[in-house]
Amino acid sequence: MATHGHLDRQLRDLDRLVALIDGVFAVAMTLLVLDLRLPPQAADLPSALRQMLPGFLIYLIVFASVAGYWIIHHRTFRYVAHTDAAVTMLSLINLMSITLFPVVASIVGSHPAEPIATVCVSANSLFYCLSAWAIWAYAAAHPRLLTAEAEHVRLRHEANVMLVVGACMALAIPLAFVGVGLAYADWILSTPLAAAVGRRLEAAAD
Amino acid sequence: MATHGHLDRQLRDLDRLVALIDGVFAVAMTLLVLDLRLPPQAADLPSALRQMLPGFLIYLIVFASVAGYWIIHHRTFRYVAHTDAAVTMLSLINLMSITLFPVVASIVGSHPAEPIATVCVSANSLFYCLSAWAIWAYAAAHPRLLTAEAEHVRLRHEANVMLVVGACMALAIPLAFVGVGLAYADWILSTPLAAAVGRRLEAAAD
Amino acid sequence: MATHGHLDRQLRDLDRLVALIDGVFAVAMTLLVLDLRLPPQAADLPSALRQMLPGFLIYLIVFASVAGYWIIHHRTFRYVAHTDAAVTMLSLINLMSITLFPVVASIVGSHPAEPIATVCVSANSLFYCLSAWAIWAYAAAHPRLLTAEAEHVRLRHEANVMLVVGACMALAIPLAFVGVGLAYADWILSTPLAAAVGRRLEAAAD
Amino acid sequence: MATHGHLDRQLRDLDRLVALIDGVFAVAMTLLVLDLRLPPQAADLPSALRQMLPGFLIYLIVFASVAGYWIIHHRTFRYVAHTDAAVTMLSLINLMSITLFPVVASIVGSHPAEPIATVCVSANSLFYCLSAWAIWAYAAAHPRLLTAEAEHVRLRHEANVMLVVGACMALAIPLAFVGVGLAYADWILSTPLAAAVGRRLEAAAD
Repeated sequence: MATHGHLDRQLRDLDRLVALIDGVFAVAMTLLVLDLRLPPQAADLPSALRQMLPGFLIYLIVFASVAGYWIIHHRTFRYVAHTDAAVTMLSLINLMSITLFPVVASIVGSHPAEPIATVCVSANSLFYCLSAWAIWAYAAAHPRLLTAEAEHVRLRHEANVMLVVGACMALAIPLAFVGVGLAYADWILSTPLAAAVGRRLEAAAD
Repeated sequence: MATHGHLDRQLRDLDRLVALIDGVFAVAMTLLVLDLRLPPQAADLPSALRQMLPGFLIYLIVFASVAGYWIIHHRTFRYVAHTDAAVTMLSLINLMSITLFPVVASIVGSHPAEPIATVCVSANSLFYCLSAWAIWAYAAAHPRLLTAEAEHVRLRHEANVMLVVGACMALAIPLAFVGVGLAYADWILSTPLAAAVGRRLEAAAD
Repeated sequence: MATHGHLDRQLRDLDRLVALIDGVFAVAMTLLVLDLRLPPQAADLPSALRQMLPGFLIYLIVFASVAGYWIIHHRTFRYVAHTDAAVTMLSLINLMSITLFPVVASIVGSHPAEPIATVCVSANSLFYCLSAWAIWAYAAAHPRLLTAEAEHVRLRHEANVMLVVGACMALAIPLAFVGVGLAYADWILSTPLAAAVGRRLEAAAD
Repeated sequence: MATHGHLDRQLRDLDRLVALIDGVFAVAMTLLVLDLRLPPQAADLPSALRQMLPGFLIYLIVFASVAGYWIIHHRTFRYVAHTDAAVTMLSLINLMSITLFPVVASIVGSHPAEPIATVCVSANSLFYCLSAWAIWAYAAAHPRLLTAEAEHVRLRHEANVMLVVGACMALAIPLAFVGVGLAYADWILSTPLAAAVGRRLEAAAD
């Protein structure tokens, strides 16, 4: 009974943590659009919509990044069966970076041509990647947290995916000062790169 | 044990995807009202409330559409038991269109008489319908994702419902340039039409 | 297997509906504060905080109402085991009124002394109560939706609670034109009244 | 059957309450950033970002507090297996303070050097701590609500953690008038203090 209650408790622990993370992802994804408003000073609706276009394209790029992070989170947490104080704490630090995406998206949306604005997005993405890497690397080093002992190999692979994306984001910071377009291209390419690396590692592990 | 862990994992996969989708639906539905604010320049409260009326009616129409999409999503996902990379990816593309409903509702709410404003709603709805169709059509073609092998017939029917609604939304784009009222009428009629087609197909399948 | 799949499906149906409802309640409750902002034109912080006070009190009253509605929803849905097209449709109409609470709270918060502003809150609350009544009355009339056949008596009692609160809200509309304070008093008293009626009916049924 | 239905019902009761609480936490955590906007009157982007810095640091502190409260809530609710009218009511009062965090964070973010602004945060945190203490103290006094009879000792410890944090928050109110920096230091130190007390009590109980 004690053991059973203990197991149930750990399951509910993980479910609540995952529910909080998914809730923050859902709210942050929906708030990304908050700055997509008609500019009040526009002469007419067609020109107002044209002025919204750069912000809309940046919304698409940031949404795709955040959606990609969720997919990796979702794929990775399948291997995690239990949580402990460290996973919970690291997850909340990770959550902080998710809540900041609407802020940095708004900054770059209003100043799409300024390198320093893209640095806000790159730095926050780097913070996301490093904190996610810390979660998977910690879990991989503690097999008692995993669904099966052997999963630590897969988790280490997934942690590596986050390091690859993080390296792309770190690279986008100096690239933006060479040319802002290079930072955008770096962001866009990092998602399919991460997906490709992830699929490759998953295929290798199966 | 390996098989059991694998099953549990797939169930949790689907639950998390559905929780994220429902979270985005819940936030987007609640954010639809964000532009229903008292106009600050109105002379008195009764005239301010009168000025809010067109925005309120558009809110009702868009809320009814999004609620209708949720009902169809809910009815359809009953047949889906597992997810894979493609269903997850298509669902996140589908989610993007849900997060855009508050933006397009705000555009048409502030310019209810301009055809180009209604085109934003129609185009986003069309994007929703096509991405939802892609999910159901893909799942119908992969019976291993379904609760029972025979469900692929029902899912193909549901995918057809999305194509019918999508056709209504595509039709609303040229109609708006004939008369904006025709686009509104098209939106309003598409929901009961979809419900009727859905009920008909469900009755036929039972 | 077919029956088992059918049962699982109905359970998931209800879980998703309840999750969507709770998501909308959570977002709407948190958005109620959105208009609690420091007035930008205030001379200093203490006087700005004093100017926020009426809006804060109205926030407390509306939050208490919405929280009370959630408690009743929560207490009542315990008796519901299955959903059908009508419960789902009625629940989404009910959800619409929840999403409107931040709007009507904002209207009355900026014009606390105007009867017509309180009518917006009363009318939306009345709409909530009538749509909630329709859900419970429908479910009570369809025992196959309930956890146990005998629960239809309890559900009918709960539906009556919604009619009592709805009557208070309908009464607040003419009362506001006699004196705005009477409408506020009516709102405040309706929550403990509903709680008392609910406890009484629950005690009678046990 | 009756008993089984009753058990199921209580489990779903608790799950819905926890889902609502986590939903409000997720929305409130994400809305904390809402006031992190570029100041429109800034000369250029670098100086605008510099002007955002105090608000960003306050965001970090308030986010860490709210995340800490969630961790304690999560750790404590593991011992709770059932809910009753009092736990539900106290939890909704507790929720009200969570929804107010974006408001008080906005007040202190726009006036970081004014003692009275920090009092808003301290008073709301104190309100959170006292209402959370009331939940755990009530549950500890009613062992039928707990996962195992013996858990009431752990819950009483957790309630004491909330009283320790609450005392820090009460202390921050007079401290702010001595020097605003002391209130900030008090907030920052209260989280590791609570974590240390919590870990100590958990170790003692195991």
